[in-house]
Amino acid sequence: MSVLVVGSVALDSVETPFGKADNVLGGSGTFFSASASHLAPVQLVGVVGTDYPLDTLQNAFKSRPIDLAGLEHADGPSFRWRGRYRHDLNTAETLETKLGVFSNFRPKIPEQFRSAPFVFLGNIDPRLQLEVLTQVAKPKLVACDTMNFWIESRRADIVTLLGHVDLITLNDAEARQLTDEANLVKAAKWIMERGPKHVVIKKGEHGAFMFTQSSIFFAPAFPLESVFDPTGAGDSFAGGFIGYLAKTGDLSEANLRRAVVYGSAMGSFAVEKFSVQRLLEITPDDIKRRVGDIHKLVNFEQEL
Amino acid sequence: MSVLVVGSVALDSVETPFGKADNVLGGSGTFFSASASHLAPVQLVGVVGTDYPLDTLQNAFKSRPIDLAGLEHADGPSFRWRGRYRHDLNTAETLETKLGVFSNFRPKIPEQFRSAPFVFLGNIDPRLQLEVLTQVAKPKLVACDTMNFWIESRRADIVTLLGHVDLITLNDAEARQLTDEANLVKAAKWIMERGPKHVVIKKGEHGAFMFTQSSIFFAPAFPLESVFDPTGAGDSFAGGFIGYLAKTGDLSEANLRRAVVYGSAMGSFAVEKFSVQRLLEITPDDIKRRVGDIHKLVNFEQEL
Repeated sequence: MSVLVVGSVALDSVETPFGKADNVLGGSGTFFSASASHLAPVQLVGVVGTDYPLDTLQNAFKSRPIDLAGLEHADGPSFRWRGRYRHDLNTAETLETKLGVFSNFRPKIPEQFRSAPFVFLGNIDPRLQLEVLTQVAKPKLVACDTMNFWIESRRADIVTLLGHVDLITLNDAEARQLTDEANLVKAAKWIMERGPKHVVIKKGEHGAFMFTQSSIFFAPAFPLESVFDPTGAGDSFAGGFIGYLAKTGDLSEANLRRAVVYGSAMGSFAVEKFSVQRLLEITPDDIKRRVGDIHKLVNFEQEL
Repeated sequence: MSVLVVGSVALDSVETPFGKADNVLGGSGTFFSASASHLAPVQLVGVVGTDYPLDTLQNAFKSRPIDLAGLEHADGPSFRWRGRYRHDLNTAETLETKLGVFSNFRPKIPEQFRSAPFVFLGNIDPRLQLEVLTQVAKPKLVACDTMNFWIESRRADIVTLLGHVDLITLNDAEARQLTDEANLVKAAKWIMERGPKHVVIKKGEHGAFMFTQSSIFFAPAFPLESVFDPTGAGDSFAGGFIGYLAKTGDLSEANLRRAVVYGSAMGSFAVEKFSVQRLLEITPDDIKRRVGDIHKLVNFEQEL
């Protein structure tokens, strides 16, 4: 089954202790698509400006099942983000954000995308996320992401959005900020009371929780010896997670757990190189092996 | 099999967002013993001053297999620590540390403790940790802990100590500080190259890694809805971990993994109340249930 994703398509300039990359493919929609397309066909809706290197994007995605028919070409500069990571690689320091054509983005879902069974509303204005939902027909699963900027400026709209999604992915700081609960178990309950049946809280290098009404699942991040560039890990996680659900079409708890692990695996690949580079190289065997490695990482028998 | 532990026996005064406790039982030796004694007999070596409420300690431990014959009574004030936790409960703010009789502590291992098969060198001066090892006869396993204070002031002694222990437990910040490696996989390798066959890196609410030459195991911290007081969680983790190894006498990788989970379970109990209160209340069934809950938390099947 296919996944419709609405998200940013940007140009990133990143500096890490290991190197520097200028104007490389970035944005939540781009990372999500590069990741999810290993598992299911992806329909990307986003916007780029007149300065965007479309041929680079098309070339990167040429062997992947990613439909770019929903990528709008607008007059003006593309969304650009410039950031830096220090030695510990834990937090990105944003040096510059230029929204460009993204600031006037109004997602238009092409006719042929409107029946996508899986919909991922990437991190954009929650009012636009709600608008997308008026354009699609009864998906099997609607998931959304959000970020601190929207929690500060459009909190009421996010709460409205929660009533219309099945699942939300957000990081631990965002969950605490949205719910005003320091404790993540309580934060997840607060969110589930407002709509979503599942809450996935991403903790970066510390793994991810999936909360449901009756259970908690935890998947660690895979401990890599060299993390090269953390940019896009969260969106790649979401891509692996929703991509696996779309591939299997199975929303049972057992399968949702497996999907979280696929998310963790894809997030761990994303950080091995700049931009979507590593996500474009990996094979189905690499993914299967990484999922197996995560299984070995946490596996134990309860009794002697 | 029994566990010999050398560690601090202190009086803690703690303030958390949920309450305040004054001059309650604390110290690494105390938490370790309260935890490990659920699984194996414990022999505690430490020192208290003339002001120490010995009857309170004896009463607390009266139904537990904890031998206090190695608890020295010295002239002078007991070790006291006063600290505070803010809303996020992640880091203790130390308001006051008075070492008292602990500053001149020279561990003397009673004759009847010298053949203990399991030895845990709690967080004291690494030169004293080495001195303890000259007083014991070929244990099956020697484990040690350390902290930032000793890494700063006695780094060379810690490196010497590493050559004489089988296992070290330390937290992530300490591992990074000791090895000057930001990456935990590399930090663990650095440590293993200097002696220990196993390195356990504790990450507080983010769980714990166990590294061996050929594998990595990860156990999450159990996500509690109310964490009351994080003091002693790391020492309670170590008590559960080493206590389980002593109970089973089995140093296979499968059993070491289970031991890490027992450590995580005991750490999760410790934080539910002030001091060792919760550790003294729990039953074998509570522990078994918590280990089962951690198994459910991470359990997933790789394939449909």
